[in-house]
Formats: sequence, structure tokens, C-alpha cells
Amino acid sequence: MKLLKVDALAEAREKLMEHVEECFFETEEIGLRMALSRVLAEPVLSEEAIPPFRRSTVDGYAVRYRDVGGASETIPAFLKVIGEVCLGENTSLSIGPGQCVYVPTGGMLPEGADAMVMVEYCEPFSDREIAVYTSVASGKGVVQIGEDMKEGETVLPAGRRLKPQDIGALAALGKTRVCVYRPWRVTILSTGDELIEPSEEPEPGQIRDINTYGLCAQAEQEGMEITACHIVPDVREELKRRIEEAGKTSDLIVVSGGSSQGKKDMTAEVIDELASEGVFTHGLALKPGKPTILGYDRESHTLLAGLPGHPAAAMLVFEQVILWFYREKTGQSKRIPVPATIATNVMGAPGKRTCQLVKIEKTESGEVTAIPIFGKSGMITTLTKADGYLVMEENQEGLKAGETVFVHLWK
Amino acid sequence: MKLLKVDALAEAREKLMEHVEECFFETEEIGLRMALSRVLAEPVLSEEAIPPFRRSTVDGYAVRYRDVGGASETIPAFLKVIGEVCLGENTSLSIGPGQCVYVPTGGMLPEGADAMVMVEYCEPFSDREIAVYTSVASGKGVVQIGEDMKEGETVLPAGRRLKPQDIGALAALGKTRVCVYRPWRVTILSTGDELIEPSEEPEPGQIRDINTYGLCAQAEQEGMEITACHIVPDVREELKRRIEEAGKTSDLIVVSGGSSQGKKDMTAEVIDELASEGVFTHGLALKPGKPTILGYDRESHTLLAGLPGHPAAAMLVFEQVILWFYREKTGQSKRIPVPATIATNVMGAPGKRTCQLVKIEKTESGEVTAIPIFGKSGMITTLTKADGYLVMEENQEGLKAGETVFVHLWK
Repeated sequence: MKLLKVDALAEAREKLMEHVEECFFETEEIGLRMALSRVLAEPVLSEEAIPPFRRSTVDGYAVRYRDVGGASETIPAFLKVIGEVCLGENTSLSIGPGQCVYVPTGGMLPEGADAMVMVEYCEPFSDREIAVYTSVASGKGVVQIGEDMKEGETVLPAGRRLKPQDIGALAALGKTRVCVYRPWRVTILSTGDELIEPSEEPEPGQIRDINTYGLCAQAEQEGMEITACHIVPDVREELKRRIEEAGKTSDLIVVSGGSSQGKKDMTAEVIDELASEGVFTHGLALKPGKPTILGYDRESHTLLAGLPGHPAAAMLVFEQVILWFYREKTGQSKRIPVPATIATNVMGAPGKRTCQLVKIEKTESGEVTAIPIFGKSGMITTLTKADGYLVMEENQEGLKAGETVFVHLWK
Repeated sequence: MKLLKVDALAEAREKLMEHVEECFFETEEIGLRMALSRVLAEPVLSEEAIPPFRRSTVDGYAVRYRDVGGASETIPAFLKVIGEVCLGENTSLSIGPGQCVYVPTGGMLPEGADAMVMVEYCEPFSDREIAVYTSVASGKGVVQIGEDMKEGETVLPAGRRLKPQDIGALAALGKTRVCVYRPWRVTILSTGDELIEPSEEPEPGQIRDINTYGLCAQAEQEGMEITACHIVPDVREELKRRIEEAGKTSDLIVVSGGSSQGKKDMTAEVIDELASEGVFTHGLALKPGKPTILGYDRESHTLLAGLPGHPAAAMLVFEQVILWFYREKTGQSKRIPVPATIATNVMGAPGKRTCQLVKIEKTESGEVTAIPIFGKSGMITTLTKADGYLVMEENQEGLKAGETVFVHLWK
């Protein structure tokens, strides 16, 4: 481990791309009912046209649109009703000039018809005839064959995090099983002799562990599975044993803590020993987030990450480094940041990418304002008070009140 | 059931507030590890100060800031090191003028000290002395007692949908159990003789059911529990039996479909029979979403909702009526809509609140553009192509290209 300089975030991200093997990302096939929020590992193509028949979107009469051309409230068109289509059934009916057929919403259009007239615009005239008081355009009230999904069309791209409507679209296609990425199995280790379990009462000098809970929840929110989480005392062999053990069952091992001088070295040294090519990122030009360590073990196929001990820093690095990598490699589209006006001046950190926590407020005039949340490292409420964060790039000196910024909102 | 006019969305929402009993919203106590995305039923107050001792945010020396006043790279201050604080332990050390104590990140400040000097700015001078090459402000590098959370402070309000950082804050407070709203148990019934299970091959005139899958996923995304979902044929007694049966186990029963004339009446009549005060909303001045029916059964404590059969309409009404009500009554804060520039003109529907699906694009200059997605009712891909929707109010004639709009993004 001979790394003399900290990495820019972009460099660390590139190194992750280089060092972690492709096979790290496994896929699995699951039932559609379980697929919400899972990430598609391959595109979904439509193997058929949806709808597979011309389908009415209204209750009314299937007509030839030319037959009602010019019809109005004062001068109706008269059509002969030659039958009715039943919902869910095929129809052998076919209409000719001056004829029409009753079709309910969702029903199949008979041959010869090219538009629907809503029942509200029709009136029974005689036993087998109706008066139509409106004209319609060709195709009105009809979903054409394949208008929703064409045969062979890509309906959902690989990398899609499945939304409720996607589940609906997959149901429409009869795709009751889908190929998705297997979620990472994650172990979270929180190091620090000062840490106790949240269920315990702290003695003077002790504090309850935040990071196993916070980082576990962050990983779970992303759909990952937690295999284990522990508080680990600042004992080198104990940390090494825990990481080795976790490597057997986990894809990702996160060690938070080690912000203090001695501990920082310890985590870095242990990860350096266990990673196949050693630690490849040791320190990030990111504020907060400097004491970030990255390595990859090809033997156990495990990504090893040392995160800062300060909760806000740990969670922001987890988001920008680890979750970024997960989303990028699984092909997920980026979430859209919200444009806002920054309420006060904010200082940047020269040479560092800076994350500024902000709260969002909407003024009466509809303007969206971002109010910076300041607070010392080591605090957690800065994160709970914020709605998201904005990024100042390495070369950005700061922000002036009134400038437009783009806020990455929490999920 | 003698309702002659459709309700504006605001009216339907008010009626929901009136008709549904308070006791409908039950709470439960759960473990913190399970609490992510659950909604707090009561505010969380801090019963102690966090941190409970003055805590260092850096590795360095605890000093009296006045002792290093004026110190610089050329003119250091010299301090006597009287000891070291161990992480996680109490300290009985107390510093006087000209003295300092080593404190690691996260360690407790000794009495008499009022600031930290980072180790990077210090140099051993003799065996028990250091040279300090910087001055510091009072409180620098120290989180004061209660600076993160004051004793008695409201840390999280009731109605908070718990985020990962909230889980962290609750851990810091030792709140390993939290009181949250019990999720609604939901039954989804999809009516329509044309519907088949997604696993089946459609005959001509049949289509696969989208709504049980789509609405189930939407309810699940909100944290609700699905107790049952079925396709129900258009048979009045069968629908009634299903609803009665579901009422025994469900808080919410959603019947989608019934957009066609005969079916619309059937769903409304059945809900009217079962709801204690009958159907209170029959039709919404919402586009899409007109055929919406609402009732409440006080006997089984069940909210009964008839939604449109068209998938996009059903999902948009579920969002704006049912989920709105759920979020409002559990006190959740509203999600922030994203300001964007509408790309093309959009027509409104006079007298109706109109939801326009849009896709979001960010131009190179950073401008966020909303591109309308048009498509016939009955299609599902309009929803999968959209990133969210915007609302045109009842009195809004339409939108002009270039106007600023606010987009409600999908989760």
C-alpha cells in the first residue's frame, strides 16, 4: 500500500470499474409479484402486439367513420344496428355501409368498423336503428392492434428499476417471471471502542452506534440484503477475522469508523492485506468523506469499503461511491435532481468535491429554495433535517445566494 | 344512491375525511431494524442530550483556545501534554493554563479544555511538550453536549416516513422500538369478463389483467400489505360475495374495472349496498379518472373504492385519492414536485382537473424539460414512458409551451 495522494471522486469511481469483476453482478429469475423495485438484468421485449385486437375505449357503437361524417345535434346520421359484441369474446360480425354494432369498453371491434361513437351521442330511433348526433375521426375511441406495445418492441430496458406500472406492463405481456440482478449481500461493521449497542445505556465517554443501523437501512432501501452487522472493537485481529468471516457470505463489506489516526491505519492495513491488489483508493477528495478506503478481493469476490466514522459522511460516501457503482453497473438511469435557488452563500472547499446538505422549501410563488444545513461532523441530525444534498465540484469556490443549484433528494 | 353530480377531487377528498373513522388508523410498535419506510405514529423526543459529553471531531489536542491565540506557523505556542484520553472512556483529567491533553476522534474532552487543535498542526517539542502552529476559535473541533439533539427536543415528527438517517438518529437515542402506523391490508379486485390471468394465453377478445398487478405493486410500494387479489367476472353476486369476504380481513378494498356502462352501475350498486352510508362519491371531475366510486363500511371498518378499469386512470386515481388520503391522515409531508419547462402546448379539460403524464429531460444547459406523453386510455405504456405527471386545475384552459410546470415524479 503505497498511495500518496487522495483520489478525486471520479478517479475512485473509475478504479471501482476497473478492479471489480464483471461476474460480481449475478442475475436471478423471480416471479412478477416479487419484482417491484428490482432491477431488470435484460431488456423486456414484447413477443406479441398489445392489444392483440382492435379494442374500444368507450361504450358505444362501432361505425364506419365516413357514415357519420357531417352528423351533428341537429342533423343526425341514422345507422342500422346489426348486433352486439360481448366483452371477452371474439366477434364474427362485419359491418357494411350504414351499419353499426354495439361494443362495450374493452370489447373487440368488428370488421369494417374504423371508429367508435360514444353511447352518449346516440339515441335509439327504431327497433334496429340508432340516430348518431356527432361525427368522429377515423380511429376515434379505438386502441389499434399493437398501439400500446408493438411486436418486437423493447418495452422496458435493462437496468430498469421496476415501478408499479412496469409490473402492470409485464403482466399485460404475460411475463410472469423476470430476470433481475441478484441483490448484493452486505455486511456492515462499525468499529470504535466508544461504541455500544443502541439498546445499552452509555457510560461517560461511550456513545450508541449509529452506523450499523443507518448504513443497513441505506443498503436495504436500495434493495440489498443484510447478511450481518456488528460493532467491532478497535482490535486489528478482531477486525480482520470479522472481514474474513463476512467474505464467505457477503458481496460487500462496509467498515465504518476508523476516522481517528490509529484506527484509520488499521482499517486500511487490514483491507490492504485482504484485497487481491491491495487498497486501490485510500482517501477521497470529497467533503465530507476523506477517510474512504476501497479494495476488492478476487478470491471471495468481495468488495471491501472503509467508510468514515462520522454518520453523515459515511452515508454520503455510501451514496456517492458504493450505491453509485451499484446503479451504474446495473445500468440504472440517474435520478433527476431538483433545480432550486440557494438561500445563502455557501463556501466550497478548494480541490475537493463538496456535498452540502440542504432543506427544500417551496415559496408561495412556487419558487423552490434550498436552505443549507450546517453542522459539525459527527452529528446525525444534519442528515435528518436535510431533504437532500447538492454538489460543488472540485474547482467551484462556492455558491452565491440566489444561484440555481440542483438538489439530489433523498429517496 | 342519489348522486347527480360528479365530485371535484377536493370534494371527494373532504368526504373521505368525513366518512372514514379515526379508529381506521391503527398503530403498532415494531423493532427499529424493521422500521425503514414505516410512518411514525407519534413524535420522537430526545430523552437525553446527544452527545452526552463534549466530543472531539478530530484527532488532536484538547486546549484552552486562549492559550493558542496568535499562534502561527512562524510563532508557535508551546503547551504541556498532561495526558491522553482513551476512546470510550471517562476522563478525570482537567487542564489548566498552558496545558493540553491528547484526544482521539470521538473521545471526551477533559475539563478546562474548550477547543481541539488537529494533530496535523502540532509537533512534539520535548518529551512532554508540543508546539502548536495554529490558533483556533472557542469550540473548534468539538461537538458540545446536546449540540446534535437537545434533551426534550422533537427529533422526528409524527407522520415521518422513516429514512435511513432517521433510523440512525433513533439508534443514537437508544430507541430500539418505535410506534408506527399499521399498514393497511388491501384487497384488489379486477372486474371484467375480458380479463385473464397474465400466465394464460388470450383468446381473441381477451386480454391479460394489468390492474391487480399494477395496483398491488402500487400499494406495496406505499408499504401496504396485500391480503388478496383476484379477477372477478362481471357477475353482481360474485362481486358482492368477494367484497364481503374481503371485508373480514382488509382495510381497503379496491375494485377496478367497471368503466363500461353496465359494469359501472354494478360496482356502484354493490358498494352502495355494502357501505354504511352508501356511496358518497360517484364520479370524479378528474381526467383521467371519472368513474371513481367511494364508500365506507363502518361495520367491517373497510374503505371501498371503485376505480376506473383503464390502467393509467386506475393508478392515477389510486395515487391522488387513496394514497393521498393515507398520507394525509398519517401526517406525512408532501413530496416536492420538480419545476420544469413544458415542451409543447397541452390542452386542459374545462371543469375537470387534468393529469398530464410527462417525461423529464435535462438539457445540456441544465434546464429541466417536461415532455407530454399522449396516448389513448386503456394503454399502460403511457405510464411506463412517463417519469411523472403534472396537474392542470379545473379552471386551467391549458399550458403553453415554455411555461413552468411542477411535475410529481414517480417514487
